[in-house]
Amino acid sequence: MSDTVISSARKEVVIGFDRPFVIIGERINPTGRKLLAEEMKKGDYSRVEKDALAQVAAGAHMLDVNAGIPLADEPRILAETIQLVQSLTDVPLSIDSSIIEALESGLSVYKGKALVNSVTGEDEVLERVLPLVAKYGAAVVAISNDETGISEDPDVRFEVAKKIVNRAADYGIPHTDIVVDPLVMPIGAMGTAGRQVFHLLRRLKEELDVNSTCGASNVSFGLPNRNGLNAAFLSMAIASGMTSAITNPLHEEVMQAVMGANVMMGNDEQCVNWIKKYREPAPVSAEGEAGRTGRRGGERRRRSA
Amino acid sequence: MSDTVISSARKEVVIGFDRPFVIIGERINPTGRKLLAEEMKKGDYSRVEKDALAQVAAGAHMLDVNAGIPLADEPRILAETIQLVQSLTDVPLSIDSSIIEALESGLSVYKGKALVNSVTGEDEVLERVLPLVAKYGAAVVAISNDETGISEDPDVRFEVAKKIVNRAADYGIPHTDIVVDPLVMPIGAMGTAGRQVFHLLRRLKEELDVNSTCGASNVSFGLPNRNGLNAAFLSMAIASGMTSAITNPLHEEVMQAVMGANVMMGNDEQCVNWIKKYREPAPVSAEGEAGRTGRRGGERRRRSA
Repeated sequence: MSDTVISSARKEVVIGFDRPFVIIGERINPTGRKLLAEEMKKGDYSRVEKDALAQVAAGAHMLDVNAGIPLADEPRILAETIQLVQSLTDVPLSIDSSIIEALESGLSVYKGKALVNSVTGEDEVLERVLPLVAKYGAAVVAISNDETGISEDPDVRFEVAKKIVNRAADYGIPHTDIVVDPLVMPIGAMGTAGRQVFHLLRRLKEELDVNSTCGASNVSFGLPNRNGLNAAFLSMAIASGMTSAITNPLHEEVMQAVMGANVMMGNDEQCVNWIKKYREPAPVSAEGEAGRTGRRGGERRRRSA
Repeated sequence: MSDTVISSARKEVVIGFDRPFVIIGERINPTGRKLLAEEMKKGDYSRVEKDALAQVAAGAHMLDVNAGIPLADEPRILAETIQLVQSLTDVPLSIDSSIIEALESGLSVYKGKALVNSVTGEDEVLERVLPLVAKYGAAVVAISNDETGISEDPDVRFEVAKKIVNRAADYGIPHTDIVVDPLVMPIGAMGTAGRQVFHLLRRLKEELDVNSTCGASNVSFGLPNRNGLNAAFLSMAIASGMTSAITNPLHEEVMQAVMGANVMMGNDEQCVNWIKKYREPAPVSAEGEAGRTGRRGGERRRRSA
């Protein structure tokens, strides 16, 4: 039993091997978004508001909230952003910062059981973040690198993940509250990046029985048609045991790949969600309009030749 | 080393774990195509010709050729079709029939090393098909069912595959000339169909070291947006060890999923094929036209907010 439960005041999300894949919306993050960074720094959260609502409407089950803005008061901005987002939507949040004071500030205002993003395998980081996770009864994303950096050997990364799980246990944090990020490298720079991650995901599931997540878009960095690659990566990672991802739910191709993977894993009961989303409209005229529903009708027409 | 080599008179295709995934075009098949069946029966192969060329142009590495038409002279029609297709294109063929006389007739005119599609685990079928495969030095698709039908237990299907591999060895056919079809059930009728196949594919790779193929479209039977499901299935099956599929290369989404999976498995060297196909055009004006290349440019624009 390896279900990870995350919640807001009114809603629970469960990450697990026999559950639909959990999409954590990545958009509320000023990194690389100059305009958003400037606005958040000035206390203007109008764009955060839009990003929150749009991602939930697009199917995000959780939202990642990051307020990493250089030279800004990150603890205050992160807390304000979390309060705003929690006033707008019921989906649980992932509190995303590399600054311990910001994590604490975010956790102190958060309603429910948050996902802390993240802790690494570095001793100093473990010793600062894990007590906080334990104090607030949160779950935590465990990133599989340590003082020596990110190993290219997935089995070394597995050992780092194992170390974090063991250390967390010392603080009373169960393995079901650890969600491991296997670290996805850009495949354009490292051709083995995919196989590495698929191998590691399998070990995480079979040997550590822990859930997993990743920043999925990273895999396609620098390559064209990134959504096409992200879609292939996500369905393959799900087949290998990945149970959640921090990604952009506004990308239709990526969401379709995840929904299709849910069907294939038997985690979309009776294919209800797939059918609801992609059901073809009923015939509307005698001239065969029913066949003209775009590419979804294509195969049937060609088949009839 | 588990490479399976198939050839025509002038071209070789290699199916293997460290090779790009092999697409076997499924279109030359009169099953369920009334018009094509009538034409082929009358000796009119114009549609076969179009289907052959279109599939190769769309990226098929091999073509499956089937002439199963009720009450027709299948051995003659299959041989004629093979000769025609081999005169049109260099890609190797899969000779597809459940009638032994048709397989023999096809093999007798085929130039190169064919893939015989198929043999099952039924003793009577094994005893008739394997000598033919050995005689012509062909490779063969091994379907993992036997006298008892298709088991819902993938481990039983594994045993059937193993039986075929062992029996083939008695006839001097090496395991590298066996391509196992794990049998893909419609996921709409059986929610476990995906997990079953992924599990079986992994065992086939790790324990039997054999290549695999399947009729990929079957998985989405009866459901809407079949190409979306087929795409998710194929990339997940590739992550689990599948090395070829009999499918429709004219479906763009399916081909994209396979190309993306090749990248993710490290089997598209330097991502050359992906980049060649999806490279964005260079900027054409100062007004930012470069960003208007359809959805592929979408992420970048949104990111810049």
